[in-house]
Parts: sequence; C-alpha cells; structure tokens
Amino acid sequence: MTIRLYELCGADETHLFSPHCWKTRLSFAHKGLDFQTVPVPFTKVASLEGGTDRKVPVMRDGETVVQDSFEIAKYLDATYRDTPPLFDGEGGIAMTQFVINWSQSQVHPEVAKLCLFDIYSALAPEDQAFFRMTREKIFGMTLEECDQKFEKNNAGLMKALLPLELTLKTQDFIGGDKPLFADYVVFGALQWLRTTAKNDVMPKDNRVADWFERLLDMYDGAGRAVPAACAA
Amino acid sequence: MTIRLYELCGADETHLFSPHCWKTRLSFAHKGLDFQTVPVPFTKVASLEGGTDRKVPVMRDGETVVQDSFEIAKYLDATYRDTPPLFDGEGGIAMTQFVINWSQSQVHPEVAKLCLFDIYSALAPEDQAFFRMTREKIFGMTLEECDQKFEKNNAGLMKALLPLELTLKTQDFIGGDKPLFADYVVFGALQWLRTTAKNDVMPKDNRVADWFERLLDMYDGAGRAVPAACAA
Repeated sequence: MTIRLYELCGADETHLFSPHCWKTRLSFAHKGLDFQTVPVPFTKVASLEGGTDRKVPVMRDGETVVQDSFEIAKYLDATYRDTPPLFDGEGGIAMTQFVINWSQSQVHPEVAKLCLFDIYSALAPEDQAFFRMTREKIFGMTLEECDQKFEKNNAGLMKALLPLELTLKTQDFIGGDKPLFADYVVFGALQWLRTTAKNDVMPKDNRVADWFERLLDMYDGAGRAVPAACAA
Repeated sequence: MTIRLYELCGADETHLFSPHCWKTRLSFAHKGLDFQTVPVPFTKVASLEGGTDRKVPVMRDGETVVQDSFEIAKYLDATYRDTPPLFDGEGGIAMTQFVINWSQSQVHPEVAKLCLFDIYSALAPEDQAFFRMTREKIFGMTLEECDQKFEKNNAGLMKALLPLELTLKTQDFIGGDKPLFADYVVFGALQWLRTTAKNDVMPKDNRVADWFERLLDMYDGAGRAVPAACAA
C-alpha cells in the first residue's frame, strides 16, 4: 500500500511550501520510496487522522501513523532497512537533533522575516484568518508591521547560515560526501523561502547556494516539483 | 609507550586553558587512554615536533604525530577500536564538523569577549607580546580597548548557546544519552572560559550549566584538573 503524506498547501493545492513537509519529501526521495501526497490547508491540519492538535507532516504507512519529520525519518530508517540511511549511525541521530534546533532557532526566524507576508498572501481566505491570528501572536505585531519592519535582503539569513557555509568548505553535505536527513532539515528552511518569497532573497554566489542547487537537482529534481515564487 | 600530548599553558605550567587541548584531554579520558602532558607556552607552539606552523593540540603516539583535536579524535577512533567511540558512525563524524564550525563561529567569539584580557594577564612576558600582536590583529583593536568594549556578563554567550540549550531539553548530551566528541567541542569552549575568566560569567541555572557540570564530573573529574579562575 502506498504511503500517504499529508502536506500543507496554499490556496493552490499544488503550492506545497512547509519546511517540515519538504524535509519528509526529500527523506522519501532519499530512500526511493513512493508516496501519495494529500494537500491540506492550515485550518485542516489539527484534525488530520483523527487528531486534535496535529502538525504537518503526518504520514500513514499501512496501519502506522507518524507525525513530525524527524520521527518520520527515524521510522523510515527503522522500517526500510535496505534503503540508504538518513542518519548513518547512532551519533548521527543524536547530532541531527542539534542541527534541527540550530535550524529552527537561528535560520527559521530569518526566513520568516523574508516571506511571512508572502505566505499569508498565498493562502485561502479562511486560512489567512488562522495564519494572521497565530502568527501575530508569535511575532507580537501585525503581519503588515512585520513585513514593514524587516528589509527584504538576505544579510541576516546569510549570517545565520555561517556555520553551514563554513562546513561546506571541507565537505559537500552536512552528512559528508552524501546528504543525510540533517541536510534536508536546512534544505527545508530554504525551500520554504524559495517557494514563497516574491522578492529575490535566496542565497547566491556562495557555498550554501551551490549546496542548495545540488539538493534541488537530486532525485530527478524532486525539489523542483514546486516552482520558485520569485520570477527573478 | 605513553602518548604524549603537547598542551598550551600560561606562565604557570599547570594552567592549561586552550579550548582545543581540552577537547583532546576529554577524548583521551573518554577512551580511558593514559597520556603524558607536555605544557607549551604560546611562543613555543609553532616549532613543536619539528614543525614551523604548528597549532595545539599536537599528539605523538609512537611514530605517529597528529595535530588538531578533530584529527586526533578520528585517529583515536581508528586506532583504539576496542574503546568507546567518539563519533558513533559515519554520520556522526560528518555532523561533528558542523558542530565544530558552529562552536568556533558562534560560541568562541562570545567566550573571547569575556576572557581575552584575563588570558593575556596569565601569560609569561614573552608570550604576552606574541598574544598581544596576534590578537590585536584579529580583533582590530588593542586588548585594553577590547576589554573595555564588552560587558562582562554572559548574555551574548547564552544567546549563542541557544541551540545547545534546546537540544538538552530532549537528550542529556549532544551525543544522545552519552557524550561524544561533539560534546567535548563545546565543553572546550566553556572550559576555556572557566579556566581563565576572573569574572563570574559561567552559564548558571540552565541546561547548559547542568550539562557542563556533568562533563566536569565525568572520568573521575578529569575536567577539574585545572581550577576555575574565578573565585566566585
């Protein structure tokens, strides 16, 4: 039975932009596993698969339902043992948690500053109301104020990405000579930006930009299934 | 034959404070390997073991000389295979490089702000001249200006350490339920601070502080071989 992956979408069902869902998309591609995507708008996420407080991604594989991209990756490594590993050892699993926390606390806020309003603009009306309420609470200001406050250039983002830029001096991927789940964690953050930002704010002319392009190209261009939001 | 470890020292030969040497000290403790320490002042480092541009730590194990704490850790895992691993898998080695770059680019500058002048004060006169020349070039100001510029509280350090603080919410060590070399990388940065800072600027009342104390206690308190510089 095909694995089912519930993924966040915009007003357009093909507009899949969630960083966390992209981590899982590339995890499936990494392992060569087919899956059926089920696009879900913001206001339908909480109740997925009989839940009350779900967050995407949520995956159903036969009788098993798993939520959270890291949990899904661990499930896939434990279940599909004859496919390429997403962690490559116990040390890799533990340190991936560090990369997740780094990406979430350092990279995500910088990405959000660059595309929050563009995400809002791409949602259906009922999802816009939900997004506005939840995000204005987090940021402590209106979406419009937030959009005004932050310049639309990637200086802050590139500063946050410095540890990755330095790492790519001596190896092709966070995972070494091949990508691991930790790569998809940071890929997810930049794919979130690529698929939503109307301004031209993607990393350019540096190692992170090259690494991101390499990942977009892998697995028959799985990362290019959704086009860039910026025409530049 | 006992392994020889060349370690940076202050005017007092027992004052071992280099973050990189501490990474290696705990690597040896982790593996239960005995070593003979050879204290070396700043001005004697470059020419160690017939070199011209050496940096500490430098290790001699029989006929083999290895420099750099990460290279030494990889050497120890490859050579002493019946001792506890420092990386626990190929993914662990690759992701440790990321942790090193994060620690070096985000944590080290914050530590340096808090203890640069205290390090200078603890050196012998000829090493002070070397330290002043090299560090003033890096910071683009005199040591005195640098000391004046940065407040002696750890707010900036704790901000830099946020990804670690978050990681310790769900696991005891960066390595998971046991420390790995990646833990010693960040331990080294804080041990550098502990062994040099005259002000009371160590992390307190948080998960990082608890984690650091746990590491100080391990291996019969190997991390406490040098006392804290601050009397508080």
